[in-house]
Amino acid sequence: MMNAGILGGGQLGKMLLQAAANYPVKMYLMDNDAHCPAAALTSNFVLGDIRNYDDVIQFGKDLDVITIEIENVNIDALEALENDGVRIIPKPAALRIIKNKITQKEFYLQNNIPTAEYLITDSKAALNNHKDFLPAVHKVGEGGYDGKGVQILFNEHDFEHAFDAPSVLEKMIGIEKEIAVIIGVSPKGDMAVYEPVDMVFDPKLNLLSHQISPAKIDQNLTYKIEAIAQKVAKALQSPGLFAIELLLDKAGNVLVNEAAPRVHNSGHHSIEACYSSQYDMLLRIMLGYPLGNPKQILPAAIVNIVGEPNANGPASYTGLKKVLSLQNTFVHIYGKSHVKPGRKMGHVTILSADEKDLKNKIQIIKDELKAVAQ
Amino acid sequence: MMNAGILGGGQLGKMLLQAAANYPVKMYLMDNDAHCPAAALTSNFVLGDIRNYDDVIQFGKDLDVITIEIENVNIDALEALENDGVRIIPKPAALRIIKNKITQKEFYLQNNIPTAEYLITDSKAALNNHKDFLPAVHKVGEGGYDGKGVQILFNEHDFEHAFDAPSVLEKMIGIEKEIAVIIGVSPKGDMAVYEPVDMVFDPKLNLLSHQISPAKIDQNLTYKIEAIAQKVAKALQSPGLFAIELLLDKAGNVLVNEAAPRVHNSGHHSIEACYSSQYDMLLRIMLGYPLGNPKQILPAAIVNIVGEPNANGPASYTGLKKVLSLQNTFVHIYGKSHVKPGRKMGHVTILSADEKDLKNKIQIIKDELKAVAQ
Repeated sequence: MMNAGILGGGQLGKMLLQAAANYPVKMYLMDNDAHCPAAALTSNFVLGDIRNYDDVIQFGKDLDVITIEIENVNIDALEALENDGVRIIPKPAALRIIKNKITQKEFYLQNNIPTAEYLITDSKAALNNHKDFLPAVHKVGEGGYDGKGVQILFNEHDFEHAFDAPSVLEKMIGIEKEIAVIIGVSPKGDMAVYEPVDMVFDPKLNLLSHQISPAKIDQNLTYKIEAIAQKVAKALQSPGLFAIELLLDKAGNVLVNEAAPRVHNSGHHSIEACYSSQYDMLLRIMLGYPLGNPKQILPAAIVNIVGEPNANGPASYTGLKKVLSLQNTFVHIYGKSHVKPGRKMGHVTILSADEKDLKNKIQIIKDELKAVAQ
Repeated sequence: MMNAGILGGGQLGKMLLQAAANYPVKMYLMDNDAHCPAAALTSNFVLGDIRNYDDVIQFGKDLDVITIEIENVNIDALEALENDGVRIIPKPAALRIIKNKITQKEFYLQNNIPTAEYLITDSKAALNNHKDFLPAVHKVGEGGYDGKGVQILFNEHDFEHAFDAPSVLEKMIGIEKEIAVIIGVSPKGDMAVYEPVDMVFDPKLNLLSHQISPAKIDQNLTYKIEAIAQKVAKALQSPGLFAIELLLDKAGNVLVNEAAPRVHNSGHHSIEACYSSQYDMLLRIMLGYPLGNPKQILPAAIVNIVGEPNANGPASYTGLKKVLSLQNTFVHIYGKSHVKPGRKMGHVTILSADEKDLKNKIQIIKDELKAVAQ
C-alpha cells in the first residue's frame, strides 16, 4: 500500500482525506494544530510546522508521495525530498513560481499569458514613484492568503497602509466577471479540465457571494478561457491539480489573475456535481491512476459559510436544519473549533438543472445559515 | 458539537465516517481490531469488544447518539445506555428482533408481512421430524453474518452438517429475483425510500454477481415491493436506516427474506448515484436533521470485490488502473490488511444512463479487478 502525505490540515486537507478513503493508500497529515479540521479524519496525524525544513523532511522522508493544501510550506525541504526520490505533487519548482506573487507575474509575462499590467515595488517608499499608475491593486509577494495580502490603492493617501515589502502593483481593471477553472495534470502531461466557474461577487460588500458552475458564458468565451487556463497549467510543467483564476474586463479581454497549485475553493462543487471531484482527481494523479472525468453531472452553485461579523469564539451554526430541508443541497461544515469574522467555516453545494431553483436556494442559504460564536 | 459513536469498524463504519466528515459532529468508533478499515479514518478510535457489556457502556456513556454497523453487538448494554438517555439508532428493541433470525421470522408473521413458510428447530436432532419439509433453507438463529449461518438442506443426508442450535427451517422457494430496498426512518417516523435494487446472482457460482439500481421491474411490482418494505420498517418502530431484502418467487409473490437495521451492501451505489447516500441519510437521522433525498441522479450498478479463491495473506489488487480508466466508475477499496477467499475487500460503482454501457463495464470489472495476496 502506498504512503501519501498532505502538508496542511485545513478544510482542503480534510476533503482530500475523505476522498482518499476510497483508495488503497495510507494517508499522513502534518499541521501545527492538533485540532485542525483534517486531524479528526486520520489516525496518522503528525504535529509539526509545514514551514520548517526539518519538520517537513522528517514527515516526508519515508513517504511515496506528498501534496500540499496551502502554498506556505517549506519548498527547500520539498526539493530535497524530491531529489531523494519522493514524488512531490505539485513539483516544488511550480510551487516556487506560484508562491511568490512577483515570480508568478513574471512567469505569466515570460509565457505570453495575458495578465493585468503591473510593476514591482520593493518597499512602501517606492510607491511614491508610481502615483500615475493608480488606482492599482497592491499584492504582497510572499505570505498572502485568502484575501489577506491584497489591497486596493486608490490614491497616494492609501500608501500609508501599503505593504512595506516586495510587492506587485497591478493596474486596476474594470472587472466584468471573475472566472475560475480547475485543471488536473497527470505526470505524463494529460489534462482534465473542469467547466469554468462563475465567481459572483456581492457588489455592495465586495466579497464573494457564491459560485455558479458551469459559468453562464458563451461557448467561444469558454473555449478562450479554457485555452488560457491550460496554457498556464502546461507552462508550470508539473503534475497536480491547479486552480486558475481569471478576470474578464469590460472590453472582453481575458486576463489571468492568479493560480493555485492545489485543490481550491472554486472546485468544491465538484464533490457532488462532477463525476470525478477535484479531490478524487488529485488523488488519481498522486497515486499514478488514470485521470477521472471532470464533466458535471448537474449544474451547481456553492455558497461559502464564513464567520459572521463580530463572531469570535467556539463555533456554532444557526439555520442548519432549515438548509438541510432544501432538496439537493449538501452541507460541508469544516469542523473548525473557533469562528472568527470572515473565516471560512464551511460551504453548501446545491445541485439543480433549474437556474431559478439554484438562485432561490442560494438566497435562502445566505439568509439562514450563519457561523456564530456559541 | 454532538458526539456520536459507531459500534464496529468495518467498511460500513468507514463509509459512515467519510460521510460524517461533512457535519458538525465528533465521531467515535469502537472495534476490537486497531487495524480495522474504519480506524484509519478517525482520531477517536477506541479499542474494545462491541459484544462486551462493559466495553459498550464505557464507550457509549458520554455520547449523544450511537449507531451500529453490524448486528452482533451487546444489546443489553445499548438498552442500559438508552435508559440513561443516550439515543440509540436503531432502537435496541428493533435490533433484538432482527439480530435473531427466529424472532425476526416471528415478527414478520405477527405483522402480516409476507415471508416464506418456516418452522423452528431447536437442534440438529429435531430436523428428523421435518424430512417432508425439504428442500429447505436452514438459518441459524444467532450469529450468522454475510452468508455464514445459512445453508440449504436438500435431503436428510445434509442433516449431518446442519446447525445444532435453535434455527429457522424455511421452505425453499423458486426464486425469480432478489430485490433490496433501503429505507431511512426519521425519529418522527417519516420515511425516505430508495429505489429498489436488483441483486443479480451468478447462476453457476450461486453468488451475488452485481447489483443494478433502479431494478428493472414494472411499476406495479415496484409499488408492491416498496409498500412491503415500508411495512417492515414501520413495524420495527425505530428510527434508523434499514435494508429490506425481498424474494420474488416464480408465481410473482413478494416475500421478505430478511432485514438489516443498518447501512447495507445493497445501498453502496447511493454514495454516487443518489442525492443523499444511505450514509448521509443515517447521519441526518442520528443528528436530528431533516431526511435527505433518496432519489437516484443516474442509474447505477455495483460489483463487489471479494477475495479470490485461495487468496490468503496481505491484500493487494490487480486491474485497478484498468478499472479506473473506465469512464464514470468509482472504486472503493476498504483497506482490509488481509485478503481471504470470498472476503469483501471493496466495491466498484458504475454510473450510466445506458444499460449496455453498465453491463459492459460490469463484465470488465469482474474480469479485471482482483483482490489477491501479495
